[in-house]
Amino acid sequence: MSSTFGTLFRVSTFGESHCAAVGAVVDGVPAGMQLRESDIQPQLDRRRPGQSELSTPREEKDLVSILSGVEKGLTLGTPICLLVHNRDQRPGDYREMEAVPRPSHADYSYQMKYGIRASSGGGRSSARETIGRVAAGAIAEKYLAERFGLEIVAWVDGVGELEGGMVDLEGITREQVDATAVRCPNREAAAAMMQLIGSVRDSKDSVGGVVRCVCRNLPAGLGEPVFDKLDALLAHAMLSLPAAKGFEVGSGFGGSRMLGSAHNDPFVRKEGRLGTVTNYSGGVQGGISNGEPVHFRVAFKPPATVSLPQKTAAFDGTETLLEAKGRHDPCIVPRAVPIVESMAALVLMDLVLRQEYRSK
Amino acid sequence: MSSTFGTLFRVSTFGESHCAAVGAVVDGVPAGMQLRESDIQPQLDRRRPGQSELSTPREEKDLVSILSGVEKGLTLGTPICLLVHNRDQRPGDYREMEAVPRPSHADYSYQMKYGIRASSGGGRSSARETIGRVAAGAIAEKYLAERFGLEIVAWVDGVGELEGGMVDLEGITREQVDATAVRCPNREAAAAMMQLIGSVRDSKDSVGGVVRCVCRNLPAGLGEPVFDKLDALLAHAMLSLPAAKGFEVGSGFGGSRMLGSAHNDPFVRKEGRLGTVTNYSGGVQGGISNGEPVHFRVAFKPPATVSLPQKTAAFDGTETLLEAKGRHDPCIVPRAVPIVESMAALVLMDLVLRQEYRSK
Amino acid sequence: MSSTFGTLFRVSTFGESHCAAVGAVVDGVPAGMQLRESDIQPQLDRRRPGQSELSTPREEKDLVSILSGVEKGLTLGTPICLLVHNRDQRPGDYREMEAVPRPSHADYSYQMKYGIRASSGGGRSSARETIGRVAAGAIAEKYLAERFGLEIVAWVDGVGELEGGMVDLEGITREQVDATAVRCPNREAAAAMMQLIGSVRDSKDSVGGVVRCVCRNLPAGLGEPVFDKLDALLAHAMLSLPAAKGFEVGSGFGGSRMLGSAHNDPFVRKEGRLGTVTNYSGGVQGGISNGEPVHFRVAFKPPATVSLPQKTAAFDGTETLLEAKGRHDPCIVPRAVPIVESMAALVLMDLVLRQEYRSK
Amino acid sequence: MSSTFGTLFRVSTFGESHCAAVGAVVDGVPAGMQLRESDIQPQLDRRRPGQSELSTPREEKDLVSILSGVEKGLTLGTPICLLVHNRDQRPGDYREMEAVPRPSHADYSYQMKYGIRASSGGGRSSARETIGRVAAGAIAEKYLAERFGLEIVAWVDGVGELEGGMVDLEGITREQVDATAVRCPNREAAAAMMQLIGSVRDSKDSVGGVVRCVCRNLPAGLGEPVFDKLDALLAHAMLSLPAAKGFEVGSGFGGSRMLGSAHNDPFVRKEGRLGTVTNYSGGVQGGISNGEPVHFRVAFKPPATVSLPQKTAAFDGTETLLEAKGRHDPCIVPRAVPIVESMAALVLMDLVLRQEYRSK
Repeated sequence: MSSTFGTLFRVSTFGESHCAAVGAVVDGVPAGMQLRESDIQPQLDRRRPGQSELSTPREEKDLVSILSGVEKGLTLGTPICLLVHNRDQRPGDYREMEAVPRPSHADYSYQMKYGIRASSGGGRSSARETIGRVAAGAIAEKYLAERFGLEIVAWVDGVGELEGGMVDLEGITREQVDATAVRCPNREAAAAMMQLIGSVRDSKDSVGGVVRCVCRNLPAGLGEPVFDKLDALLAHAMLSLPAAKGFEVGSGFGGSRMLGSAHNDPFVRKEGRLGTVTNYSGGVQGGISNGEPVHFRVAFKPPATVSLPQKTAAFDGTETLLEAKGRHDPCIVPRAVPIVESMAALVLMDLVLRQEYRSK
Repeated sequence: MSSTFGTLFRVSTFGESHCAAVGAVVDGVPAGMQLRESDIQPQLDRRRPGQSELSTPREEKDLVSILSGVEKGLTLGTPICLLVHNRDQRPGDYREMEAVPRPSHADYSYQMKYGIRASSGGGRSSARETIGRVAAGAIAEKYLAERFGLEIVAWVDGVGELEGGMVDLEGITREQVDATAVRCPNREAAAAMMQLIGSVRDSKDSVGGVVRCVCRNLPAGLGEPVFDKLDALLAHAMLSLPAAKGFEVGSGFGGSRMLGSAHNDPFVRKEGRLGTVTNYSGGVQGGISNGEPVHFRVAFKPPATVSLPQKTAAFDGTETLLEAKGRHDPCIVPRAVPIVESMAALVLMDLVLRQEYRSK
Repeated sequence: MSSTFGTLFRVSTFGESHCAAVGAVVDGVPAGMQLRESDIQPQLDRRRPGQSELSTPREEKDLVSILSGVEKGLTLGTPICLLVHNRDQRPGDYREMEAVPRPSHADYSYQMKYGIRASSGGGRSSARETIGRVAAGAIAEKYLAERFGLEIVAWVDGVGELEGGMVDLEGITREQVDATAVRCPNREAAAAMMQLIGSVRDSKDSVGGVVRCVCRNLPAGLGEPVFDKLDALLAHAMLSLPAAKGFEVGSGFGGSRMLGSAHNDPFVRKEGRLGTVTNYSGGVQGGISNGEPVHFRVAFKPPATVSLPQKTAAFDGTETLLEAKGRHDPCIVPRAVPIVESMAALVLMDLVLRQEYRSK
Repeated sequence: MSSTFGTLFRVSTFGESHCAAVGAVVDGVPAGMQLRESDIQPQLDRRRPGQSELSTPREEKDLVSILSGVEKGLTLGTPICLLVHNRDQRPGDYREMEAVPRPSHADYSYQMKYGIRASSGGGRSSARETIGRVAAGAIAEKYLAERFGLEIVAWVDGVGELEGGMVDLEGITREQVDATAVRCPNREAAAAMMQLIGSVRDSKDSVGGVVRCVCRNLPAGLGEPVFDKLDALLAHAMLSLPAAKGFEVGSGFGGSRMLGSAHNDPFVRKEGRLGTVTNYSGGVQGGISNGEPVHFRVAFKPPATVSLPQKTAAFDGTETLLEAKGRHDPCIVPRAVPIVESMAALVLMDLVLRQEYRSK
């Protein structure tokens, strides 16, 4: 079960960095929905590295195939297998790692867990695993968009000490996000971020960042009381991403510093429903959506692979100096943007299906 | 499934504020473990309100009974039903809420979800629901302590703008935590926090805060790759708590502002195993424990119930002024301390059982 | 998870023969349904032993209490805890079993599994465990009856070599079933069965039997392809009952002896839908209901507890003679009737909820 | 979840008859086990049609590829994706079925469930879906054989009115089973069965049958009390197979006609453990294995596709005459043999993993 997410909309991913293929089986897609590879490929392209000078230049085409569950362009209601072949199946660049676990990578903990690990280190902790999530998320997003007009938009809200500073959750579009390589819709902040990333890359280092995400046009009533609250599932989904270290919904950590009188979101009449004046709740109250935009932030640590030499210990305990070869992504948050959107879509889609039987 | 947590160690809670009882059924407790009510009651007592002038004075004894799964003081390996009777079953104080959803409470979202709600508002979003979690967590914690010497200690790390400032994760004990009513082991900070809470209470307001938690003596190898990472499950567990708005593990949001060269945790030989020099990872790498202490923080918003009058809208959209009656908890983070510990115990216990078959 | 059944309508039972209570937590009951203890008690009364001279005379009142999830007679959509107290908590009659596992009981296998067992032997394999199932089933049945007019009727179709011989699946009612103590609606067969059971009881022996069940007014489309087929879930549910040894749906084992040309159920126009002329399929095709009555049979072995002395071996391997004390049920199939109905209701209810989101 | 089987050893199958591929993702395979395609292919070859004149002559090579989870011939503990390409992706032979649901097929019930169906009818109810099960089962079987010396052997125990008559559960091997095309190890019965199948085929009809299966060298203690009993899971697994109509474990339906004094299995000392003299229990007591061979039987109805013309109704209710084209399998039980073995392996493997943590 470790590789399956969801209760009614279930996504099971598979694949390591250097095996034959990565992908996902998606069970629970409603029948009769139009679906082609071209509905899925765009988010995979946004996830792909090598799109700008900011990220690693390894070329990966990542073309997705639908192997099952769709006939004549319509979903059958049966499991959809999505496949992306790995082009580079020679795990040759990783020989040094056999003796030395890379600091803050998954080499050591996978070895402790399984007594074995993929030659590329923590094979399933590789960024390529997220291909299956993004492909599945594209299906979920398409369904939610057609049914509710749901919009999920994420962007870079921080790189190192630099903040994105965009607070208007209503208007930002993916086009605006993609206007800069760093995927921060604030042009001025984006320029500074890109400069910082370039400088970090030149110094063979890496830097962390923050992604903000907003989900608009969500119906009220999504989220299950107690353990499967909407925000609890979002937290689960986001912390399951490689390099994620933190999650906050609505006011988040900042809200913990506030007084209740300021933090409460008063109700007010909105077009045919109740809405709230402010949205410190993040669109979620008691774990259930209230119809306001759901918004949250995810913190990512700096990538663990840096070209600077690192003093560390080998598996046998001997001290050694580790130096990563090749070029590596100095900052992964721009690429994390579509991945965050995809995981949000998986959470929302599952909760929509779980809510259906109640609204009869 | 909305009220069940865990895969092999499964906790299903039940009960609203004003029904006959609250409790939990715990499935997956290993057989042959000594267990009596007196092993469970202490954490329930720590959770109970009315222990100090800082919290609500409603008296709730919350005595737990073990109804099944234990014979002659030994667990049978079968489901353990834990029951705590509700003493106050008259949901009388809530009449006003029938027409007006309380701001930032679950009244509105529950109504949207179910088309009905308990007279106390979001019945399952009540703090009393956490009784079942804490009782179940005490069982998990006892098992983990006996088997691994595991220690789980949480404390208040922030109230409003005040910070706890304790960074020594190794030494803090529950005795030190409980030495002050606010459960901050830094005496100086604790005094300031208590003063702040008192002043907030006097002004009929409420205030948020942060709980920090550390888990020591955890074996390496816990956590499932991809979706059920150790930190993802902790995030899920913590965000499922009432009023939780944020979670961060290890360096958390602060880590997103760092460079990789500074953030990486170099390995070093420790007694018979590899350890790390620093612990920005929070004891988790690639979602799997590495044997270092697991530490994280949880942000809680200020309680939504304040005695100050609030301008808001009724269900029918008409503007109204809402004023909560009675006395209410101005700050829930001190009481959240044992609840956070319990949820951490549930996560770790489940992952220990899930790891067992691999270590054969 | 071993004690939980269902995916969206989830029933978790708890309790041993001699602990404080047995019961169930039922999660997934739709909100807003009228529910009182008096809706549940009748099936518990039908399940209760001591109703006739055919069954064991131990008196168990088995009064059920609803502890949670219901307010003012309406379900809240939250977990419903159902509790029945055990009156006899002295596991005193079982001392001999400490050294000698009873043949064809669960004493030995429980001991092998857990390294411990309840003093009453396989505590969870006790017939009292089914109380939780029956109580939960009554809720499911009430919902299905109100929504679809669903009728579930089971009866005794065989005792030992005697066959019930009723083939009219359409008309039989519970009243007809309960007209005789043996619960066979064929009066003539019932008389012979009762005579057989009495004679078996007098010879201190026991005898097996078969229960047949029919579910009418089920909508088409229930059942999940591949693993969670309607008939697969029914088989799972029925074989999970104590003493069940076989299950067959529709034509069953008899169907395996037929030719396809005779076995196929031709379609024919029925009031506003397609129906089938015959029903060898048992109302299920490809694992999905087709709108015809679902019917199946369950085989139960003779109760393992007989008063005749049995030559067997003690746990330590020494040969011994075991003689059960007290009076025991010589034939459990009459009491199995409401239990079979309850399990069928749990399966159908879960599948109804799982189908809901598709029919939007 | 409808396409996933198992709790810790989880198999998710995908694929229709005429899409690009069928297969399975297997999660929970222990790490460090040797595994190559050649370990899986033999059971797929046994499952494949066209091996003898008894079955359909369509040639399907069904070569399996391992896409993930294995490196250098060793399992990594991560999900294993198994893929078999469909060679015939032209769903052309099924045009007639668009208007007329085939009697006792899944065409009608799929249409009622999804409002759409694969052009080949109930796409997931196709026999090709079992490819994923068999491939996954081969992995489970390899693990269990290496660890416990487990042997799973199934054979044809009945075709139409003809019975196999083999009762020696201990000795029969797969070699003996495969010695005849009908897979009945009783040579005399096999000859009669083959003659019957030939004659049924010549008359354009089909015939049902029974498969018997025995699992030897199973440890005691497998199976979860209450709902996930070993025999309940076997019943679930077997009834999830296409065309299965009945299941019985141990004495089965015959046992329901016996007296308890005859049916009870007395214990006796066996090499270093307790065993039973007889095995009416089928190796399962209280749902938990007792160390004796587990044995059961599965009834299969005659294939629904017959070349004889059938009077039936179209979707619109009009009466019509349906005549299947091409050649069809007159009896599927010989091919069901490896499928039954595979499903048994999946059940046992899952229960072995679920039992691990208890035996610590």
